Parts: sequence; C-alpha cells; structure tokens
Amino acid sequence: MDTIRVGIIGATGYAGEELVRILYSHPAAEIVNLSSKSYAGQPYSKVYPSYKDLITDDCQPEDLEALSEEADVIFLALPHGLASSKVTEKVLQKCKIIDLGADFRLQDPDLYEQWYQVPHEGKGLLKEAVYGLCEWKRDEIRKTRLVANPGCYTTCSIMSLAPLVKEHMIEVDSVIIDAKSGVSGAGRGVSLGNHFAEVNESIKAYKVGCHRHTPEIEEQLSNLAGKPVTLTFTPHLVPMQRGILAVCYGKLTAPATWESIAEVYERYYGKEYFVRLMAKGEYPETRWVKGSNFVDIGFAVDERTGRIIVIGAIDNLVKGAAGQAVQNMNLLFGLAETLGLEQAPMFP
Amino acid sequence: MDTIRVGIIGATGYAGEELVRILYSHPAAEIVNLSSKSYAGQPYSKVYPSYKDLITDDCQPEDLEALSEEADVIFLALPHGLASSKVTEKVLQKCKIIDLGADFRLQDPDLYEQWYQVPHEGKGLLKEAVYGLCEWKRDEIRKTRLVANPGCYTTCSIMSLAPLVKEHMIEVDSVIIDAKSGVSGAGRGVSLGNHFAEVNESIKAYKVGCHRHTPEIEEQLSNLAGKPVTLTFTPHLVPMQRGILAVCYGKLTAPATWESIAEVYERYYGKEYFVRLMAKGEYPETRWVKGSNFVDIGFAVDERTGRIIVIGAIDNLVKGAAGQAVQNMNLLFGLAETLGLEQAPMFP
Amino acid sequence: MDTIRVGIIGATGYAGEELVRILYSHPAAEIVNLSSKSYAGQPYSKVYPSYKDLITDDCQPEDLEALSEEADVIFLALPHGLASSKVTEKVLQKCKIIDLGADFRLQDPDLYEQWYQVPHEGKGLLKEAVYGLCEWKRDEIRKTRLVANPGCYTTCSIMSLAPLVKEHMIEVDSVIIDAKSGVSGAGRGVSLGNHFAEVNESIKAYKVGCHRHTPEIEEQLSNLAGKPVTLTFTPHLVPMQRGILAVCYGKLTAPATWESIAEVYERYYGKEYFVRLMAKGEYPETRWVKGSNFVDIGFAVDERTGRIIVIGAIDNLVKGAAGQAVQNMNLLFGLAETLGLEQAPMFP
Amino acid sequence: MDTIRVGIIGATGYAGEELVRILYSHPAAEIVNLSSKSYAGQPYSKVYPSYKDLITDDCQPEDLEALSEEADVIFLALPHGLASSKVTEKVLQKCKIIDLGADFRLQDPDLYEQWYQVPHEGKGLLKEAVYGLCEWKRDEIRKTRLVANPGCYTTCSIMSLAPLVKEHMIEVDSVIIDAKSGVSGAGRGVSLGNHFAEVNESIKAYKVGCHRHTPEIEEQLSNLAGKPVTLTFTPHLVPMQRGILAVCYGKLTAPATWESIAEVYERYYGKEYFVRLMAKGEYPETRWVKGSNFVDIGFAVDERTGRIIVIGAIDNLVKGAAGQAVQNMNLLFGLAETLGLEQAPMFP
Repeated sequence: MDTIRVGIIGATGYAGEELVRILYSHPAAEIVNLSSKSYAGQPYSKVYPSYKDLITDDCQPEDLEALSEEADVIFLALPHGLASSKVTEKVLQKCKIIDLGADFRLQDPDLYEQWYQVPHEGKGLLKEAVYGLCEWKRDEIRKTRLVANPGCYTTCSIMSLAPLVKEHMIEVDSVIIDAKSGVSGAGRGVSLGNHFAEVNESIKAYKVGCHRHTPEIEEQLSNLAGKPVTLTFTPHLVPMQRGILAVCYGKLTAPATWESIAEVYERYYGKEYFVRLMAKGEYPETRWVKGSNFVDIGFAVDERTGRIIVIGAIDNLVKGAAGQAVQNMNLLFGLAETLGLEQAPMFP
Repeated sequence: MDTIRVGIIGATGYAGEELVRILYSHPAAEIVNLSSKSYAGQPYSKVYPSYKDLITDDCQPEDLEALSEEADVIFLALPHGLASSKVTEKVLQKCKIIDLGADFRLQDPDLYEQWYQVPHEGKGLLKEAVYGLCEWKRDEIRKTRLVANPGCYTTCSIMSLAPLVKEHMIEVDSVIIDAKSGVSGAGRGVSLGNHFAEVNESIKAYKVGCHRHTPEIEEQLSNLAGKPVTLTFTPHLVPMQRGILAVCYGKLTAPATWESIAEVYERYYGKEYFVRLMAKGEYPETRWVKGSNFVDIGFAVDERTGRIIVIGAIDNLVKGAAGQAVQNMNLLFGLAETLGLEQAPMFP
Repeated sequence: MDTIRVGIIGATGYAGEELVRILYSHPAAEIVNLSSKSYAGQPYSKVYPSYKDLITDDCQPEDLEALSEEADVIFLALPHGLASSKVTEKVLQKCKIIDLGADFRLQDPDLYEQWYQVPHEGKGLLKEAVYGLCEWKRDEIRKTRLVANPGCYTTCSIMSLAPLVKEHMIEVDSVIIDAKSGVSGAGRGVSLGNHFAEVNESIKAYKVGCHRHTPEIEEQLSNLAGKPVTLTFTPHLVPMQRGILAVCYGKLTAPATWESIAEVYERYYGKEYFVRLMAKGEYPETRWVKGSNFVDIGFAVDERTGRIIVIGAIDNLVKGAAGQAVQNMNLLFGLAETLGLEQAPMFP
Repeated sequence: MDTIRVGIIGATGYAGEELVRILYSHPAAEIVNLSSKSYAGQPYSKVYPSYKDLITDDCQPEDLEALSEEADVIFLALPHGLASSKVTEKVLQKCKIIDLGADFRLQDPDLYEQWYQVPHEGKGLLKEAVYGLCEWKRDEIRKTRLVANPGCYTTCSIMSLAPLVKEHMIEVDSVIIDAKSGVSGAGRGVSLGNHFAEVNESIKAYKVGCHRHTPEIEEQLSNLAGKPVTLTFTPHLVPMQRGILAVCYGKLTAPATWESIAEVYERYYGKEYFVRLMAKGEYPETRWVKGSNFVDIGFAVDERTGRIIVIGAIDNLVKGAAGQAVQNMNLLFGLAETLGLEQAPMFP
C-alpha cells in the first residue's frame, strides 16, 4: 500500500517526540508535518538535537484544518480542552484522528466536565470516538475515524485488571490501584515540581484521590464488569525518566490458586504480542519494557487476606502514549498491528 | 551526667554508619568501639572516607561479651539470627542493648521462626525485650535493658496507622500498605540486584505478599486494635539513596471528615517532636525528612469509596534505623529524647 | 558572648536554604530575618517543608537597610548586580555583610564589567571587600566588614591549586580545570535546562571557555603566583543533587615525586580542619563530603607527560557557598572557625 | 544476500546484551548462538527479561571452535586475555571474528603486556587484526577476518581529535582528555564500586594516569600524527546508565578561527552518517545520542589561551561497543554500513 502521510500536532512535547522517534523508523509511514505552538518556525532538531541530521524540517504552527488536507492521519498531543474544540466533522471527512489527550476518552461528557472542570466542546463526536485500548477494542478501532488514545496510568491499570473484572473474579468495590510513574509523564513544561533537584532523590504521591485518570479507569472497567466500578487510584512520582508500574489490589470473589488465575490471563492475553505474562513468583519491573510497547503483567495471590495483587509495567511514553497511538494507526490502516513497534526494549 | 560509652557491632553497614554519623555529634555519647566482621583491622575511615581525619580508629572484631565490659550501651546492626544467640543475661547485666535487627521484634517466637525460617536462639529474653517504637512505648523502653529497634518499613507503617487502629476507626481486615524504599534499605552487601545499572531508572515491587516486616506490623497493630490484624504489605525499590514512603489504605468504620480525623492524629501526635502532621491537601515526600528523625504524616479521606489513605514518610536510615535507635538510647539513659537528633533535614 | 543576630536576604534559593540549615544548629547564632523577593509573606516552611514545625516565620520582603538595624550580620544570596548597588557605607556602619554573590569577588571592576556585562555599582567598596577564602585570607577577613564569599567552582579550584601556584611548582600558562557540578549549583530557578527529564541520565559541558568563575580563579591564582595566570576552565553539569569535583591539570616546572609534592600540601594544609589530604593513589569523590564543609584534595604525578593532576571535591552548597559563609561569619565574630560546621558528612 | 549467521560469546554482559538488542532488529543478520560462561543452560530471557517472549533460546557454554562451524561471524565480548588465546587461524578459516575486548587493539604486544600485565597469547594474529574504527579504517576492515573493536573511551576520544592530529593543527604533547562515562561501562559484574548507593549522587575520577585505554588512544593518534603522541587521559564515573563525554584539550599549533577548524572537520566527517558536527556555540550532550550509533562532536577555540577544546559524545554501549561492532560486521559482509543502525536516539 501507499505510505501513510502523518501529521503530529503537539510534536515538541515528550509524547509528540516519542511519536517522531517511532514513526521515524516505521516502514509504512512518513511524517509530513510537525506542529508546535511553542516552537513554530524553529528547526525540530534544535528542539530535540537527537534528530540532528535526521530531521531537517521546521516546526509548523498548529493548524488542524489545513493539515487535514495533506495528511492521512493526524496525531494530537495537546493539553486537554483543545482537541474537543478543534476536531470537527469537516476534519474527519478528510483524515483520521488519533487524539493522545483526554478529550474523547470518557464517553460520559458530564464525567469529563466534572473531573476536568471545563465544558466539553465536542460532545457530538463522542459517540464516534473509540477508546483506543487496542487489545480490547481492536474491531471498533478498525472502523472508526477518531481514536481516543488511553492515558498512561489508565492503560497500565486496565490492562492489568481487565480479565479479572470481566470474569467477575474480583470484588469491584475492593479495587485499589497504587501507581508509580517516571517524570516524563509530567510533560516537558517547566515548573518547580519538575526541577531536577526537587524530584531527584525523593518519592511522593500526588493528586491523592482526585487524579483525572480515575474516571477513565472506572468507566472502562465498569463496561467490562457490567456494573459500576468505583475505585481508589493513587499516582506517584518516581525519580526516573520513563516507566509506569501499577500495583492493583482487590478481593477475590472466590478462593483461587495462582494457576487458575494464570489460565484466565492466558486465555485473554496468551496470543497478544504486546502483553507478556510473568511466571509464578516473578513480577514486572519498568526496566524490562523501556522503549518498547510491551505490557508486562504478573500477580500474586495473597492467601492470608484473600486478595490478589496484580502488577503491570509499561513504558509510559510508548504503550502509555506514542506506541499505542501507532498501534492504533496500524489498526486504522489495516496494517499488521505490530508494524514499527517490534524493537526489543533498551536496557540498561 | 557522665558521657555514655557506646559500642557498635556491625558498624560498617549503612545502618551502622548512620549510627556513627549521629553519635559523632551527640553531646552525651562517645563511641568507644566500632566492630565489623568484614573490615576488622582496617581503619574505619578507609571503609567510609567521609570520616577521614574525623575517626582514626580501626574496626574491631565483633565480640559482644568483651565489649559489654567497657560500654554502657551496645548497638547491634547485624543480619537476623545473630543477635538472638549473642545477647545473653550475662551481657545484659553489664550493659544495655539496642538491637537494630529483627531478632527481638516479634514477641511471638513461632511467628519469627515461620517468617525467618531459622530457630530463635534467645526466646528467654523475649519477655524483657521492648519494641522500641519510642512514641508508643516510651515508658517501657525507659525501664528495660534490651530494646528491639523497629524495622524501617514497620516504623513508617505503624506510625501512620496506629491512631486509626487504636481508635477503631479503620476496618482492620481492610488494611493495605504499599510502601516504597530507597536503595540504602537493601544494605551495603553487593548483589546484582543492587548494581547501579540494574536499579537506576526502574521501579519494582519485591517480596510481594511475603516480606518479613509484615508480621511485625501486624503484631503491633493487633496489640493496639485488641484483635488480630491481617494486612497486605507490598514493598518497592525506588532509585534513590534514602527514604521510605508508606501509603496505607483502609476502610473507615464510619464516615468521617478530614477534620475529625485530624483531631485524632493531633491528640496522639500533636506534642510529639518527631511527628509532623501535614495540613489538609498536603502529603509527605521523602525529600523533606532526609537526614532527620522526623515522621511526616498526611492523609486524605476518599469519600467516593469510604476509604482513608494515610501517607507516612521517613528517612529509612534515621527514624527507620539509627535515629530511632539513638532516640531509644536517650530514653534508656534518661536524656532528653531529642538529644543529638535535632538537626534540620538536608535538602536538596 | 552574645548570640549573633543573623539576617539572610535571598533565603529561599538553595544557598539561602543551606544557610538556614547550618545556622539552625549553630550554637552562637540566631536567625532574625529570612527575606525573599519571590516568597515574601509566605511561611518559610511552605517554601521548604523540611522546616515544618522547626521554623514558623514568614519570609520578609528584602530590605537591606532596615535589616541592618536589627542584625549583626547579613548574608546576601542574590543574583549578581544587586549586592553592589544595595550595600552601602551606611549599611556597613551598622552590620557586617557576607555576600555569597559575585559582586565583590573580583578586585578589578573592569574585569567584572567585562565578564558580567553590567556596570559595577559599588566600586567604592571594592577595596574594603575581602575575598572570603578562609584558609588563605583568614587574617584579612577577621578585620573587615564586607566579605565576598567565593564561588563554588572557584573555591574547589583554588583550594586544589593554590600551594602549587604559590610555590611556583606548576607552569602557570599550562593550567586546565575540568570541573563537574551537581544540579543544585544551577539554583532553584525553573528552566527547561534544569528539568528533571532533561538533566537526568546525561552529562554536558556548558559555557565552554566563557564561565564567569574563570576570572575569579585567575585573579586569585595570579595574586599567589605574583604574575598573571590565564587558564582554561570547563564546567559540567552532572545528574546529582550536590557536589563539585575539580580536576586540575598542569605542567610541573620541575620533575617531582608524589611525596615531595605531598609535603608541600601538608605544609599549607596539614593543620587546616576543613582540608583533607588524600593518601597516594586515593582521589576525592563528592560523596565523601556531602553535607560538610570539607575540601578533599588528592593528586597524581603523571611521569609520562610531566603533568600533575590535582583533584578537589567539595559540597557546592556548603564549602562552595553556605558553609564557607558561616566559616567567614565565625572569623568575623572571633568565634572558633569550625563552630557549627563540625558535623560529619552524610552518606549515602 | 543470505542472512548472516551470528554468534555472540559473552552475550550476557552489557555489551553482549546490546549486541543482541541491535541484531534482533537487523534485517540481514540472525543470531544463532548466545554463549555465556556464567549463565550457560539458562534461558536468555531469564538473564534479561526484556527479551521475554522475544528470545526463547538458552545460553550456551562458550565454545569458540564449535561455534565457528555454524556461524559466519562471531562477536567476542570477553574480559581481556581470553580472546587472544581462543582465536586461532583454524577459527578464522571458518568464520570472521569481531572482538569487542582489548586483546587485538594494540598493534604493539609489548605495550599490551605492559598495560595489561598479562602475556599476549595471540601475537601471530596481530598483523592481521584491523583496528575497527570504521570511519578511519573502512578499507582495511572490509578485507580482514579479524576486527579489534575499539574501546568506548577510545572511540569517543579518537573520533574527536583525529582530524586535528592528522592535520598537525594541535601540539601532540599538549593533549589532555578528560572523559566521563555512565556506569554501564563498568560492566555487569557486581562489586561494591558499582553498588547503587555508592555510585549514585557522586562523581569520581578513577585510574588517574593509568587507564588502559590510554595506550590505545596514543597508538592510533601517533599513527595519524606520524610521530609519537603521549597524552593525559582521565576517566570519570558519572551516575547515569549510558553515555561517554570526552572533553579534549590541546594547544593549537597556529592561531585558527572556529570556522577554519570547522572546515577541516567538515572535510573529514561531512559525509559520515554517524558523525554529527555541532554548530558554533553548541556542544554535545550524551542524552542526544542515547541508544544510537552517533558520535556528536563540537568544539570551542579558547583565544585567551590558544587552546582548542573538542568535545565528543557517544553512547558507550552503541558506538562505544555493540553498535560499532555491527557497523564493522556490515563492512565485513559488504552491506550498507548503516544497516540496522539507523534508529533515532531515544530521549528522554
């Protein structure tokens, strides 16, 4: 088939840059436009000297409508509130959209307005938007024009818990997710909170009980459970570049052995290229997925308490953002789902 | 009063070295002996060049009985299983013992043998041993000859949860502790697991469902609750030098406001020098306690789920080991509890 | 004697905060004022929660003249260009000034204006200002009202090279200093260059051939040499919180053994509490001086090339800023030079 | 052409693992054997769980001779002293060898024995061995059976200095190289020196004046200069995973502008894919080459001292080891030199 013409709006944030890194080596895609509000007019390789001699283009001003004329697909990596006002039926008639932001993730706009505290400007498109968690939404993604790429914490949490929730093996009101992220998850915007000397050599929980990925996880798990799931989600900032570790706790609805649960995970994920199931007694660590699109999942049954502890690890910029976005692009264009995403993780 | 003559057995591990750092500036103590199995005969300042020109002594072979003749108090910083066989009535008649290891922490020797998988050689002394969590055991500590200094995770976890448990405000079968530690907590022994390039830029959970601090936390909380507490405890390794963050989850037994719970914490800890209670919406971070003996505690009430999330932060080598040990020494010798421990945290 | 009343202007930067940390435990000083342009009106313990419950004061607006009425000594930790316009004869008649900034370090105002590209507003006071490198200027410091506290790189570089330069053992046109600093040296101001994900996992040289500490090092070494010294100085940013390592290269003017050079260093520094001379084959590392006022110095004679390589290590915030400033205060007020600065380094 | 059958001896060290990572995605190579003395018999994906589900092979015992029967090329990633005794004419008649160790790098065996303190067991093959610095030895590499892959510090240092040395623009007795490396350069072997808490938050110089890469740099530069080069080389350990920064100092033989020197670098490197020349005022940082085979080079002319400061940056595991080895493989087999090495660097 022809090469896919790709535009990236918000190309100078970390998720945008990771899209560039992956697409640079993608055999079926060509980047035709790198847009950036902050750096328009500057060479991309000045913003990220890693691309010196590799990319000679300048950053463009963000203009979704103009770009829709020349691109087959546009990735949006924007702060919330922007995509919902910019993406229109007119745009979608010309090109496909993969939105890495939050605007089209929640199907319920009230929930969006409640957690994000801004009006939702694109309610009319919510029905068409497909939640782009590829392993669970593959068929719908293939048919849509608008993909809402899941959040980083969300991807890791849902992937870890989904089989248990869908099989009613976990009490849905017992779920607690204690998640840890590297600092790139906070974006490239400067603030005292991201200053090296403030972040390094420390760990903290933040947005305790009020992080915006909470309703996103709940909505998806509720769909799987067939009933409302309300859970506790606590994100943490860890002094490292990349990686998310989601440690998920819940009560088993019935006593179960490690082996019987492993069978369920095997059934759902055994054939999934990007999901790797750990052996008994082994648990994911973020270092083993760095730079890759893998989700590593392991779990323990805590017989003393009747709980299960499921642990998932991803690279927040890959499976948690740009990698999954490219996986979605592959689905949208009928390519092999793993195309351009098969490199081994980088360690150390 | 006279200067306290102090010996340290196991002085070349990280906890031992932190004892040296604190005692070096302690106005009422003098180190008379630094013992080390691995480094006996070598100058202490070769093992830790930070003490160049400050400490000129050589490391001594470990000989508790001989040392008991010349010291008023001996700190033991040894792997588990050693203290219980070395500490004897004869030793205790000559000097006081503060054991930073695990051997005398659990009152129930069966529990010890089950979790540590070695026989307990000092059962006869278990009755006398006092669990050295100073804020909760002050009066008993003052009267004993043998203090079992609490574990690092344990100190942080119990301090965070104790008021709620004692006041029956938290369902005791609902408690989950998700704790994160800096790498110094793993000790100075070399292993691939502590190699820089393996630990850096990654986070992992370890000993999921089976860490030995679990029964220690449970035993103490059970005493406070007046009934058995069984909980889930998950430790994590974080790429930083020092610090423990314990994030504790539990169901409230009755609806409660932040303010009403703050009152309870204030009642228990309001006058405690080493406990700092965070304001509403603020949470502890390990950077703010580095190098100090403080426990910072903050919490959120998650109304959506009826849970409370209590977060505690300590420096694992200070309040989690050497600092609390010196606080215990101060109690044992009738000194001001804060003596030698009043320096401000070091940041950044 | 009476307690020294201390004011700090610029108390919320890293150097200012380190002054607070050291002075908080200083037995002869009391902080009477913490001023901060950015945080005036806010509790100091909100800016640095490490001081929660320890310091209850609010930050004050910066008003040097008013403060001179109530303080015995004022530390200035300000960007360059401010101190020279604020410090006046009137202020100096009321209190002593220790300036941690650059304004009074260079005796030659033309050099200042050339390297800093701003006019010098306080030329009239340059004669009185004493360069506060305590080990070399002790007698003059004791008599002055205005101390120019040396820069961090400068302190480490001069301390390392001074004996060789003074004894004419090194060819003065052969000196190259390759220095490495932790990120706290860049201050607390936010910028993309100090963002965690940009600094972490990388090393870079910066201001190659044009860093402002160059003329400061040259001026002091020229004074010692009795002739102009022009050298190459290259600073680097290292992903760590604290520490400076200065690696200094130069041609020996005559062949020399390690031992003969060690004798010279011993002669100059053997009785200096804050200088620690390494044994043959041992070299300083920043970890061994963290949190302390020590300068560790080691060297190698490279017989193959006729060069000497002298390596110095300091904590940039202590001997490189706040610690040396307090050492200067001790000298100004006739106290023991080491008072309040005798804590052991903190490791790990 | 047919797929190249590749064996790796020493596949479980960091350089070996990086070979695996690169070759895993190489379009013209297939790994047929992963050998490891320490892990023989264990699944490779247990040693490096990053390869879970990707590589299912077990590690094999190291048997160069047997392996030469089935492989077209064998990479050796072994401690020094082993390759020289194992590589024989018999082996070379069956397959090509790329040795990542030190044994065949120095053409002068006396120099080898002097710096490595072991006898050289393969002197007979030294004449055939080609020093595999691809940009400078391309034609010889294409014709040989035995490539000595350069050291990491060496690659970065020689690439930075070679044009100046070859053009006699730098005084050869004036060269000083101050180089900084990430911790992966120390290998995966465990030792206290590589323990996280010992390396993190510190920087040190090591092997001052006596590092074994010194004679390697000198020999190559001497060949280019046409006369003996004796230089000072100081390696440093930096708390990061990957990267080498070599800061090279030297006296210019004649005054020169930045532009005139840039022209020379452009002449030598302008068409080299893997060499990226920085613009005036810009300097390499290791973050921009991470995971890639690039050498970034920038320089400053220090008019005040008549010196030039050339700075080079590489990823020590890629251009400094495995990447350059694959580049050599491409040359040996007549492939495009960049094949399998064209991925963009990974940041952050």
